Amino acid sequence: MHSDGTAQEHTEAGSERPFDVFVRTCPSRPALEHVTGKWGSLTLSALSSGTLRFNEVRRRVDGISEKMLSQTLRALERDGLVHRSAQPGNPPWVDYTLTELGEVTAARLLDLIDLVQRQMPEVLAARNRYDTTQDAQNHRP
Amino acid sequence: MHSDGTAQEHTEAGSERPFDVFVRTCPSRPALEHVTGKWGSLTLSALSSGTLRFNEVRRRVDGISEKMLSQTLRALERDGLVHRSAQPGNPPWVDYTLTELGEVTAARLLDLIDLVQRQMPEVLAARNRYDTTQDAQNHRP
Repeated sequence: MHSDGTAQEHTEAGSERPFDVFVRTCPSRPALEHVTGKWGSLTLSALSSGTLRFNEVRRRVDGISEKMLSQTLRALERDGLVHRSAQPGNPPWVDYTLTELGEVTAARLLDLIDLVQRQMPEVLAARNRYDTTQDAQNHRP
Repeated sequence: MHSDGTAQEHTEAGSERPFDVFVRTCPSRPALEHVTGKWGSLTLSALSSGTLRFNEVRRRVDGISEKMLSQTLRALERDGLVHRSAQPGNPPWVDYTLTELGEVTAARLLDLIDLVQRQMPEVLAARNRYDTTQDAQNHRP
């Protein structure tokens, strides 16, 4: 159902759907935030290349703190996007894999990230134009 | 160039690309955050249905403050995703439209939002399972 990419019609049809991120109290809003948040998006993307141990994710997601990564992985695990597997040992071996749900989500997310990366030259050009215009306005006699 | 949807290969090929969100200092990281942030994502999505005045966006993006919406729209305008058009008058008429770059971005974003909304029943079931397990662990004698 709805697998034919009707995303464009969504905004108009949103109110008929059981879940709607535009509604403040809808549980889909925090779910979207876990997926698209600063660290959630990079963590999901990092795991799309396969199972990783905690420190491997941390190296890949440049700049994330240990605490923030734990918190991010826990939210994604709770939402059923990431599977955590702990093996006994000293130190214990803990690794993280995308679930099927997580893989589908990561694929869409990577499409978006790929686009954002590809259009960066246009974004940087736009920023330059904007800043120049703002400067000109601020220094108007 | 790269228009054939090679998003899955991106994570491996990332280091050869000029822009890489996995690199802490890459300008694509804040650009992604503007698009995927809590308010940026909803604002872009709201505008995908067509030109809107400031208060129309605000009504659509349930829960956003006036200040936060101004800030969000300014970041999206600076990145070249939203066009702001002010008509003189009293009060002045200001409206917002997606640029071509914004439209392409919003389409990918809506694909992701659509997916997140559709898979909410599975996400809620996963949350229940997770919380039950955590509870059981916390109350273990």
